[in-house]
Amino acid sequence: MTNQGTNLDPWYDSYADRTAGLSASEVRALFAVASRPEVVSLAGGMPYVSALPKEMVLGSIEKVMHANGPMALQYGSGQGTPAIREHIMQIMALEGIRGSADNVVVTTGSQQALDLVTRLFINPGDVVLAESPSYVGALGVFRAYQADVVHVAMDDEGLVPESLRETIVALEAAGRPIKFLYTIPNFHNPAGVTLTWARRLEILDICRSHGILVLEDNPYGLLYFDQPAPQAMRSVDDEGVIYLGSFSKTLAPGFRVGWALAPHAIREKLILANESATLAPNSFGQYVITEYLDQTDWKGQIDTFRGIYSERRDAMLSALGEYLPSLTWTRPDGGFFVWVTLPDELDSKAMLPRAVKELVAYTPGTAFFSDGQGRSNIRLSFCYPTPESIRLGVSRLATVINGEIDLLRTFGGASMMQSIPTRSGVGNPPPNIL
Amino acid sequence: MTNQGTNLDPWYDSYADRTAGLSASEVRALFAVASRPEVVSLAGGMPYVSALPKEMVLGSIEKVMHANGPMALQYGSGQGTPAIREHIMQIMALEGIRGSADNVVVTTGSQQALDLVTRLFINPGDVVLAESPSYVGALGVFRAYQADVVHVAMDDEGLVPESLRETIVALEAAGRPIKFLYTIPNFHNPAGVTLTWARRLEILDICRSHGILVLEDNPYGLLYFDQPAPQAMRSVDDEGVIYLGSFSKTLAPGFRVGWALAPHAIREKLILANESATLAPNSFGQYVITEYLDQTDWKGQIDTFRGIYSERRDAMLSALGEYLPSLTWTRPDGGFFVWVTLPDELDSKAMLPRAVKELVAYTPGTAFFSDGQGRSNIRLSFCYPTPESIRLGVSRLATVINGEIDLLRTFGGASMMQSIPTRSGVGNPPPNIL
Repeated sequence: MTNQGTNLDPWYDSYADRTAGLSASEVRALFAVASRPEVVSLAGGMPYVSALPKEMVLGSIEKVMHANGPMALQYGSGQGTPAIREHIMQIMALEGIRGSADNVVVTTGSQQALDLVTRLFINPGDVVLAESPSYVGALGVFRAYQADVVHVAMDDEGLVPESLRETIVALEAAGRPIKFLYTIPNFHNPAGVTLTWARRLEILDICRSHGILVLEDNPYGLLYFDQPAPQAMRSVDDEGVIYLGSFSKTLAPGFRVGWALAPHAIREKLILANESATLAPNSFGQYVITEYLDQTDWKGQIDTFRGIYSERRDAMLSALGEYLPSLTWTRPDGGFFVWVTLPDELDSKAMLPRAVKELVAYTPGTAFFSDGQGRSNIRLSFCYPTPESIRLGVSRLATVINGEIDLLRTFGGASMMQSIPTRSGVGNPPPNIL
Repeated sequence: MTNQGTNLDPWYDSYADRTAGLSASEVRALFAVASRPEVVSLAGGMPYVSALPKEMVLGSIEKVMHANGPMALQYGSGQGTPAIREHIMQIMALEGIRGSADNVVVTTGSQQALDLVTRLFINPGDVVLAESPSYVGALGVFRAYQADVVHVAMDDEGLVPESLRETIVALEAAGRPIKFLYTIPNFHNPAGVTLTWARRLEILDICRSHGILVLEDNPYGLLYFDQPAPQAMRSVDDEGVIYLGSFSKTLAPGFRVGWALAPHAIREKLILANESATLAPNSFGQYVITEYLDQTDWKGQIDTFRGIYSERRDAMLSALGEYLPSLTWTRPDGGFFVWVTLPDELDSKAMLPRAVKELVAYTPGTAFFSDGQGRSNIRLSFCYPTPESIRLGVSRLATVINGEIDLLRTFGGASMMQSIPTRSGVGNPPPNIL
């Protein structure tokens, strides 16, 4: 037999059906290039953890090791420690949520909560409703469980209730089982918009009346710039909403500690699924975060993060106004991302290699749809680069975009813009892009 | 509508089919009682992390925070850091494994590697072969993915090749798809036995000739007492074995860092599944463990653990000989567990509440089978209690067992031994029992 290297997989016929849903993003190799230091990356969703004083973290760790070392190094409970769950209730109270720490399940980042909720509810072919666009990491999970994602329109005020209602009615008429609505109400990834309070209530009503669970994903809520976002959807609906939260953006992602707050019956199943998946979330991270929340000015630190990200948001919006005045984009009140709409004739995925050649990277809009939309959009992130780098990156991006537009106007047609051949779905980009 | 408390789940009809496979162990409440300090627990599989000098860990953490803080606090790669993967290759070389760090995937404990491998290969109804008995946490994963576990006989030399061959032939004749053999060759959990070298080779031959993947789970391999275990099965078969390893027993479980070494094509899919499940394993734990392996006498520390566990194994075997001379049990050469066979007429699950009343806990044998076997067995762990506690616990256990035998001989029949009603399968015990 000829050795065909990595293309020859002796186990090819053994994989489960769901494994067909796992694929690497075609832009993955490109992002590897984009991580070179000379490239300004406006692609990644990495929080700026360098703004976290190392003494704040190290002080907490030292206290944990001296006071609770053997507990922090040991297996823990599949639900997470009682102490961190009490702190999580206090954090969620900042967004209006009341309830019992007994309904919190600590997970390996909120990504794992997404995975576990999907595992609990999705049979192959079940429908998940998601904003249009939606978080790439969630779309990957839904695909991995063979869900059928149906996108629902959004505008500058977030998900559009009327579109949601119409979509549900059409799907129900077709006999399709809709399991949940996945939504990011605050400072949306990738769209950068925030769902209004009136719409939150209307969407909860719609979902309640159709028996559809709401999965409210809120990693960015405390990172508001001008004023706090409306209160959480979970604050007015205990039984119809699973709320997902995370320490990745308000503290640091390296501990992989997130959580779900779930209706009681679902929470019981989440704990069992969590134990099956990892036995327990990491004790060490939970103890350190608990100590950090007990002993440091963690709210002041979030204020620091808010100031940094706000300044970077401003830098990005002003650079877009200066360098790309003919385009349109969203104006986020918090979070990490701006969603830019290109002229129709441009293809954001086809353009990416040219951008990287000009030493700037972004995430093509196609990553945020399950259905091939997004070719006229790009997501720009302002969380990680400095304001100066952001200006430089946007100016380079303008060079690329204006060059493409000039080419198209000179030579016409779409032939210049042939996209990289695409597989079904978008595949996983590298984790630091999400 | 009457409030039926937690029995009333408005989402009852929404769960996926697989969710029926999640259940809590019936003995869970009992184990909660058993965690009271006056109870000698011979039930848990917790490593004795108090024997790890806190300065060894804290020194590593301080170095990480000063040299690599922002990297350790940030998102990482879905495969794990290159540095820890190189260390993992060196650790596996101690058991004869050669290969490339590129084929290692770091996971959230080796439990998550089990979950991801099962996710990649198991369609509902597919067969997983496992030793009889097998690790309760693996059986839970297989059940969660709706696998059909078929147990294969083992004896004092481990899995019996002839039984494996017969089982495979019978399943193939029935047209059943067998996806993999799950095996713990060294210091088996729960059976305490070690697979001989000759049998390792024979089992690999059998699996290879039938196109069955081998999942070699080896958390205890370096914790040998008298002499090292035979080399890993993976050391002689690169393409047919996925090897699972862990830092939970040789360092500490609280970081939740384990790994899989997989054939190259499978490894690619494992990384994608890992990203989908958690984005990436926790960076902080990986950086700390890398520093620990770089800078400390970690092999000396494993020698310390081996000495402690060996002394406790001796205490348990001598106490069994003294207090329960009429029973039989295995004699482990490493690891954490002894497997005890009771007289046929006793029921280990029915007896557990009486044992807890006598202030000793164990794990009933039924936890380690998917098919209701194990009522005449108990697993005793010697990893966590001191030698004195072990002696005390075994003496209390003898009181319980001898009392049961006396009762039976006096009154006869099985009516005294009615078991707790069982659901299908055994359900998850709490994680610290595994």
